[in-house]
Amino acid sequence: MTKNGVGREIPSYIEGIGQIKPYESPFSVIPEGNKAGAKLKRPLPHKNKLIDSIEEAVIKTGLKDGMTISFHHHFRNGDYIVNMVMDAIAKLGIKDLRIAPSSLGTCHGPLIDHIKNGVITRIESSGIREPLGTAISEGILPNPVVLRSHGGRARAIESGEVKIDVAFLGVPACDDYGNANGFSGRSACGSLGYAMVDAKYADQVVLITDNLVSYPCLPASINQTQVDYVVKVDEVGDPKGIVSGAVRNTNNPKDLLIAENAVKAIVASGYFKEGFSYQTGAAGSSLAVTGFLREKMIEQNIKGSFGLGGITSQLVQLLDEGLMEGLFDTQCFDLVAAESLGKNPKHFEVDAGFYANGHNSGCLVNNLDILMLGALEIDTDFNVNVISKSDGYISQAVGGHQDTAAGAKLAVILAPLVRSRNPIIVDKVTTVCTPGETIDVVVTDYGIAVNPLRQDLIDNFKTAGLKTYTINELKDIAEKLTGKPDKIEFDEKIVGIVQYRDGSVIDVIRKVK
Amino acid sequence: MTKNGVGREIPSYIEGIGQIKPYESPFSVIPEGNKAGAKLKRPLPHKNKLIDSIEEAVIKTGLKDGMTISFHHHFRNGDYIVNMVMDAIAKLGIKDLRIAPSSLGTCHGPLIDHIKNGVITRIESSGIREPLGTAISEGILPNPVVLRSHGGRARAIESGEVKIDVAFLGVPACDDYGNANGFSGRSACGSLGYAMVDAKYADQVVLITDNLVSYPCLPASINQTQVDYVVKVDEVGDPKGIVSGAVRNTNNPKDLLIAENAVKAIVASGYFKEGFSYQTGAAGSSLAVTGFLREKMIEQNIKGSFGLGGITSQLVQLLDEGLMEGLFDTQCFDLVAAESLGKNPKHFEVDAGFYANGHNSGCLVNNLDILMLGALEIDTDFNVNVISKSDGYISQAVGGHQDTAAGAKLAVILAPLVRSRNPIIVDKVTTVCTPGETIDVVVTDYGIAVNPLRQDLIDNFKTAGLKTYTINELKDIAEKLTGKPDKIEFDEKIVGIVQYRDGSVIDVIRKVK
Repeated sequence: MTKNGVGREIPSYIEGIGQIKPYESPFSVIPEGNKAGAKLKRPLPHKNKLIDSIEEAVIKTGLKDGMTISFHHHFRNGDYIVNMVMDAIAKLGIKDLRIAPSSLGTCHGPLIDHIKNGVITRIESSGIREPLGTAISEGILPNPVVLRSHGGRARAIESGEVKIDVAFLGVPACDDYGNANGFSGRSACGSLGYAMVDAKYADQVVLITDNLVSYPCLPASINQTQVDYVVKVDEVGDPKGIVSGAVRNTNNPKDLLIAENAVKAIVASGYFKEGFSYQTGAAGSSLAVTGFLREKMIEQNIKGSFGLGGITSQLVQLLDEGLMEGLFDTQCFDLVAAESLGKNPKHFEVDAGFYANGHNSGCLVNNLDILMLGALEIDTDFNVNVISKSDGYISQAVGGHQDTAAGAKLAVILAPLVRSRNPIIVDKVTTVCTPGETIDVVVTDYGIAVNPLRQDLIDNFKTAGLKTYTINELKDIAEKLTGKPDKIEFDEKIVGIVQYRDGSVIDVIRKVK
Repeated sequence: MTKNGVGREIPSYIEGIGQIKPYESPFSVIPEGNKAGAKLKRPLPHKNKLIDSIEEAVIKTGLKDGMTISFHHHFRNGDYIVNMVMDAIAKLGIKDLRIAPSSLGTCHGPLIDHIKNGVITRIESSGIREPLGTAISEGILPNPVVLRSHGGRARAIESGEVKIDVAFLGVPACDDYGNANGFSGRSACGSLGYAMVDAKYADQVVLITDNLVSYPCLPASINQTQVDYVVKVDEVGDPKGIVSGAVRNTNNPKDLLIAENAVKAIVASGYFKEGFSYQTGAAGSSLAVTGFLREKMIEQNIKGSFGLGGITSQLVQLLDEGLMEGLFDTQCFDLVAAESLGKNPKHFEVDAGFYANGHNSGCLVNNLDILMLGALEIDTDFNVNVISKSDGYISQAVGGHQDTAAGAKLAVILAPLVRSRNPIIVDKVTTVCTPGETIDVVVTDYGIAVNPLRQDLIDNFKTAGLKTYTINELKDIAEKLTGKPDKIEFDEKIVGIVQYRDGSVIDVIRKVK
């Protein structure tokens, strides 16, 4: 056991994982060597890539016991691909697979059966939700899951740490030779940013579509040089679960209060100035921040350089109104964003490596100024948990949390002080996902706390007359409301590890008793 | 010595090159292993990449004796970058470099001095023109040059056969963090298709621009994850030498006659039908073919799927008129094309690997139906020379010739039977660049010959009442006009090798006596 850079006890070796490099600090890992690459091939000209079924694709790729396959999560909770492919693979009797999707949702509950029957023995993902997360926390999987951020997954694939044998990628529009995009069709999802990494690095790529269009499908987000087979199916997903028409603004008074506090902090920070860059999520208070910030931009005649991340109609509005110079998009959160991506060259599709891999010549999070993030728990060292609920069960996703926090000049956590009668600010978070060193400000409905590492921000807030609390003061207020939370009982068995974006281990997740 | 697949004597070992794999047949090489990749790095966030001079860039990259550097040729004969960078390197006393540009033009004559003083000891390129080609043919370079097709160069870089230590890439528009495109600015060239390969695979990338724009420069053809340094200079090239406003149609009667014959062959071939794909060059007769073909398309109500290659205003017209579904563009031949590329999502920028590398999952030439190519010489086995003049001197470029001929269903050579009193059809070409097996038809101003391997075409032409000659008949006509050409005297010393697109050696070039 070693105590890592956020004070967690990390074993030097974990059964089913191997040697462990403990997390030190946000930029301590300096990678060696060169990027990995996909398999070299020699297809004859005018080859037909269109095949009849997922089963045929599995057979043609030569998928074997012990291999690694991957999926993307652009279809979110409407995804049919993962379950369809795993059913086909199970039927063919292939076992002991590692699956490495960009994330997994509640719709992927059927994977529990494929774990039980030995088809899946390893999972690496950004997120795992109920009921699968619960089953894993209870010890169903023979090997610990590996949880990575979006940038961390791109790094792992691009560096060769994760070698994908076959990627099975659902696409909303595709031609018969493997050019595809996410802009059109009944299953339109917009950006294919996570899938683009798999398409570039997997040894074999199978595209699965319900919308086969005439060659060439342009613009091509995934292209024919990366794709071996194309399969047409009736439905790749449920459009209602893929994206909504437009993410709606909140009218929850607690969210609005947090957003108002956040905008005060942004304006007082010194980073709200001409050419600032900005990322936010699609949760209620985050969206509200974008709306309030837009008013401030117009009021103070300030224009931003770029918006980043999961893109919503609110960010598209900033672009269309000339309040932002450009948008970088790994994932669209609504159809307004998807449509804009397909037609506006300043709304630019990027893969997850471009977005957030810290081991190339400079990803987008490196240029972030102002960032809004969520949290399940924050501790008094500003460490953040975004993966396990307060009862210890895996239920959420690391997402881009670690990546963006590491890059941004001003990383702000937006959270209610109390959620479902649990305090959000605690002594020690259940699982550390994002190190406190990279979090600058916590904004709650009860007040704002600044990381003491950022004396400059404390000074700026004081100058602006913005009242702040220490993180311990906020914790005390929370505990007065809820009482001290019960300690969760864990077994010794490790059921998951949380990698930091650089490949080191920032925390382990143990079996819930 | 081994006789290779086109009957040329190839040594098994060449001093300065190493072991030689002789060319066998167009698709005989099946590659093993995986693609190469750029160096992994860990830049800190908010790093400044903008530096003051090319000299500083050379120093910062740590360029050392014996390394490999690269350039692109999108600025054609207007390029200032190669000479500026080589001057800076020479001044710093660095020696024994391999340069691996995508091509070299007459403007690069000053490299002769850098060869003389030992700065450059190896050259790998698609083309080498006078006066450098002449100097190399006379033996100035200590090691043989390696000549590759555009697809072959992409293959060599992508497979790791050519490892670029530092790429110095001129760009018409660029922000201070390394996002760049070719659409705007005084040096606009359109597509950056050749440079995109270098940007992806070089260990270090320096962008040089005369048009620094505010961040982010979108859309980004080359992007910040690939770029280490950005240098602003006064001029990257002479706009007059970069691209013309619009390539003009020919009114040379010989070109028009060849074009008319070519269109007859295309229409009779059976490949001129709904959804056909098409590539042509920017030479007089090629352009004229596009014009005549457009008329046929309108007349017969036939629409094509895609146009490929160096894109001209003539192909943009087909796209704009709905006669083509899309254009794939590695290189723009005029400003009309450059402008269209910047605004029309169906006019799609592709890198040279996407265009023509035969060792990925399926490049664009694999989907080509109808192809027009030029030639310096064609022999009675249909082998084509596009690199050395009939006096034996290196003076032209392999370009996409080998790649497109290998992929296309109908590869047509357009050539006058006699050029500058030299016969174009000969017994044996001076240098084999493209194997005859991949050439289907030769169209001259005196008539058409079909490769006997293509009995199906011979039949189709007969059915259509199109008169054809044997290649020997055309050769005889040519020799009647010019007399038998003199045999060129060569020294034993090998000054260059011509790789086939798969990395094997299709011919060697010897020192001219």
